[in-house]
Order: sequence, then C-alpha cells, then structure tokens
Amino acid sequence: MDIEKLISEITKDVCGQITGSAPAAVSGNGQNLAKMIDHTLLKADATEEQIVKLCEEAKQYGFASVCVNTCYVPLAARILAGSGVKTCCVVGFPLGAMSPAAKTAEAIVAIEQGAQEVDMVVNVGMIKSGNWAGVKEDIESIVNAAKGRALVKVIIEACLLTDEEKVKVCTVSKIAGADFVKTSTGFSTGGATTADVRLMRETVGPDMGVKASGGVRNYDDAMAMVQAGANRIGTSNGVSIVKGMTAADSAGHVCVGCGNCKNNPTCPSGRVNFVVANNY
Amino acid sequence: MDIEKLISEITKDVCGQITGSAPAAVSGNGQNLAKMIDHTLLKADATEEQIVKLCEEAKQYGFASVCVNTCYVPLAARILAGSGVKTCCVVGFPLGAMSPAAKTAEAIVAIEQGAQEVDMVVNVGMIKSGNWAGVKEDIESIVNAAKGRALVKVIIEACLLTDEEKVKVCTVSKIAGADFVKTSTGFSTGGATTADVRLMRETVGPDMGVKASGGVRNYDDAMAMVQAGANRIGTSNGVSIVKGMTAADSAGHVCVGCGNCKNNPTCPSGRVNFVVANNY
Repeated sequence: MDIEKLISEITKDVCGQITGSAPAAVSGNGQNLAKMIDHTLLKADATEEQIVKLCEEAKQYGFASVCVNTCYVPLAARILAGSGVKTCCVVGFPLGAMSPAAKTAEAIVAIEQGAQEVDMVVNVGMIKSGNWAGVKEDIESIVNAAKGRALVKVIIEACLLTDEEKVKVCTVSKIAGADFVKTSTGFSTGGATTADVRLMRETVGPDMGVKASGGVRNYDDAMAMVQAGANRIGTSNGVSIVKGMTAADSAGHVCVGCGNCKNNPTCPSGRVNFVVANNY
Repeated sequence: MDIEKLISEITKDVCGQITGSAPAAVSGNGQNLAKMIDHTLLKADATEEQIVKLCEEAKQYGFASVCVNTCYVPLAARILAGSGVKTCCVVGFPLGAMSPAAKTAEAIVAIEQGAQEVDMVVNVGMIKSGNWAGVKEDIESIVNAAKGRALVKVIIEACLLTDEEKVKVCTVSKIAGADFVKTSTGFSTGGATTADVRLMRETVGPDMGVKASGGVRNYDDAMAMVQAGANRIGTSNGVSIVKGMTAADSAGHVCVGCGNCKNNPTCPSGRVNFVVANNY
C-alpha cells in the first residue's frame, strides 16, 4: 500500500473515532510530574550562564531533560553527565524549513556531541504542499540518524495545521518510527492546547509519547495537558510548576498514590480528577 | 593584536565618530530600488506554489534575489536559472543558535543546491556571553564555505543588541570577510530601524553591504532605509514597494537621474531628499 493511501485510511479511521470526550489514560500523578518536564530555554539570546543555571535546576528538581538549541548541547551534556537528566535539543528549529540534509546533519552533530533526545520540527511547508512522502522522509532521516542513540520527538506545530493535517502528521511520525509527537515550538502563532494533545494521543495510541509544549506556564496548565494525554511537558517554567505542584500536594489536590484507582475510572478519594492508569 | 583588543579599539573609534546626523552616502534612486530588493518568503508554512509565485514575481520586477528557507533552494534555483535574479537563502534561521558545525553544513548544502547568497544568523547567545572569538569563528566558517561561490550576509538581529554590541558584531563580520551585515530576521522582537542602518553603515564603511530587513512594508519604508545607508532591502512586500515607487515616480518624488547632484550634498532640483553618490 502506498504511503498516501495508508495515511488517508488511518486518518479516516482516527477522525471517525474521535469523540471529543474521552482522554486516553495516562500516567499522571503529582509525584512524577517533574520527571515529565523538559526544562527548556530556546531564546536566541540565551547565555552560557543561563544554560548552566537551567542544567543545575534540572538536576535539583529531577526533570526529565534540559532542552536547548544545538549550540549548547556540548555544555549541557557536560553538566548533566551522570545525573540522570537527559540532554535534549531542538533541530530545524523553529521553522522546520531547513533542507532535509541540513536538518539531518544538525541532528547527527548534536547526537555526537551528547544529545540524548532530538526534538525536530516537521516541514510544515511540505504538509501544506501535500508532499507527504517528503514529510515522511524528512522525519525518517532523523529517526535513522538517531537510532539506538537518541529519542526523536516530532514537533508538528499544531497551530498552523488543520485537525486533519494534525492526524496525518502524527500518523506519519508513528510510521516513520519517531518516539514522540510534540505540539508546538512556542515560536509560532500558538502553543499547546488540551484539544490538540487529546487528538494527538487518540491518533498515536498509548505506545508513543505525546509532548505538550508552548504556553505551559504553571501547574494547572501542566496537569491539564497530562490529563488530556501528554506524558511529557516542554516548558521554561519547570521550577514554578514543581513549586505549584508542591502547593497543590499540601492542599490534597493531587494523587497520593493510594493505588485504589487501579480498577476504577476515577479517583476513589474524589480528591483528584484524573485517571492513573497502570497499563501505560 | 588579539581579536578582543582589535574589536574593542574599532568599536571605540566608531562610537566616537557617530554623530547621529550624517548618513553615509549611498546609491539610491527610484530606478534601481527593485535591484536592491531581496524578495522574501520565510514563513514556516510557505508552500511550493507560493515559492514559484515569488520567483516569477522576482523575474518580472527584476529584483536582486529571491530569499527562501533552505528547503526551497533547489526549487528557486531551478526557476531563476539564467534570469539574473539570484537565489538567496537563510541559514541558522531565525535563532542563530544552531551548532556552528550544523550552520556550516546547512550553508554548504544550500550552496551546492544553487544558493548564490547566504544570509546567516549570528549566534546572539555567544554575543551575550562575551564569546567574540566564537562569534567570529561562526561567521568565518560560513564565509570559508561560501568563498568564490556565494555572498555572505550576517544577520545581527539588532533588536536584541545594545549599540555597542551592534558595532562590535558588524566589525567582527567585516574582519571575518562577510559581504553584508543585515539588521533583522523579522522573527524577533523588532525589525529594521533607520537608526540601526545608519549605525551599521557608519561601522562597516562604504565598501561592505548593509541590508535592511524586517518590517519594511512600503515604498517610504524602503526609501528611508536606503537614505540611512542600506543598499539591499529584505522584504515580503517587494511588489507593492515597486508599485509605490512607480506612483512616487509619477509624482516626481524620487530621483530622475539628472546627475547634477554629483558634487552637491543635496538634490539640486529639490525634488528628492537623499544623496546620490557616484563613488559607491
């Protein structure tokens, strides 16, 4: 079956199933929120000193990774070595309109310099031109470069896409072997929405990652994304989110890990409003 | 003399000379404005169809170049071949924070695919970190890759810099052998200003190019930039600028090329308010 046909069938199938009501079950208790955060600083004028601080904070709070532009991969990898916090970088960022060969070269250099996760921006122009074979090749080239050495997240820049295009590009990302789909660069016309996260989770199923990024500013934003199906959060506000989490913890608003929800669709204590699924 | 000392001395010298009143003499009559325009489309979601239209317009109006993201270099180069309109691309765009090796790789791929002009974004984070040797190397690497094959313009992203940093980075660009300095990406917090163009022209002197870009929306904007010292304009509004030029021409507001200004600091007809210098 050719790629266009395959994408079209999956898209039709997914769009037909979407109810708009049921978020996919995800792991999401307050305790492991820090472990879902990619602590991010991508501004053009970010300094070495700011990157050092970012890395130190990530170690202190136990974030999943530090996410930086590729010029800072060597610095971040050096500081984070042995800490358990991964070095994540963005590639083809933020427009995704770099030539495919150059995008791959950027990923290869970054991985050789210590990047363990690569967040690549999809070529939106190719999507808008209907060149789905090109979109797939662009992603596959990064996946092949990263194989066995780094995770690949595909930033779909959802704010520029129709719902149908979102479903298609998530499907293509899955077919191409990427590890995550990611909502946004944070540099375009909009950031993560719970509706997009929900749609992306329903499209890729439970076995692929969904990262919500762009405009995730506080604990409530982060928890809304997790509840909608995200299992990774990209944000520059990781520290305040974790502090918010601590405040919410003390107020009893997040999961205490009692385990009684195992066979129950809602929290039996009534204190939290999201599902902790043990099968994800 | 080490690079830091050299930059510091030139910066001191230039800052001491800046009067804020006298723009450098530039060539700038209505007739050749089209030849100064880099007809630009850099949006993430630009389609093949839009790039084709951009190239056709550039041929029709006789613009200097078409400026695109690197994924569109092969397409633009194919359409523009033999037309006299150059294929220009952006590299490390728009953050400039790509690893230097990847930035160079992007330039090399683009030049091999037909780019004749490369607009690279300087590493602003290195500037803010005071790593001027790194800034110079980053530029030199692109200059060396392009040597004899493509012009190099250095986008300094002026809106993020202090005046001292602007002077320094223009000086470094000149020392590194770049052909142009360019004000802005158009994707940051601000675009070209006449004050910045004037400062850049005063810094680099008459033998290097100055490109004004970002927010140049109409004929008046473009002429203000030329008057301030720009000899290239990056804009998505080239067609309306040229149409504005035609309207202004018929109203007698631009240079008619009489040549009587040769030894005169102002237009002898009193009809235009900028200097046409024959020595640039």
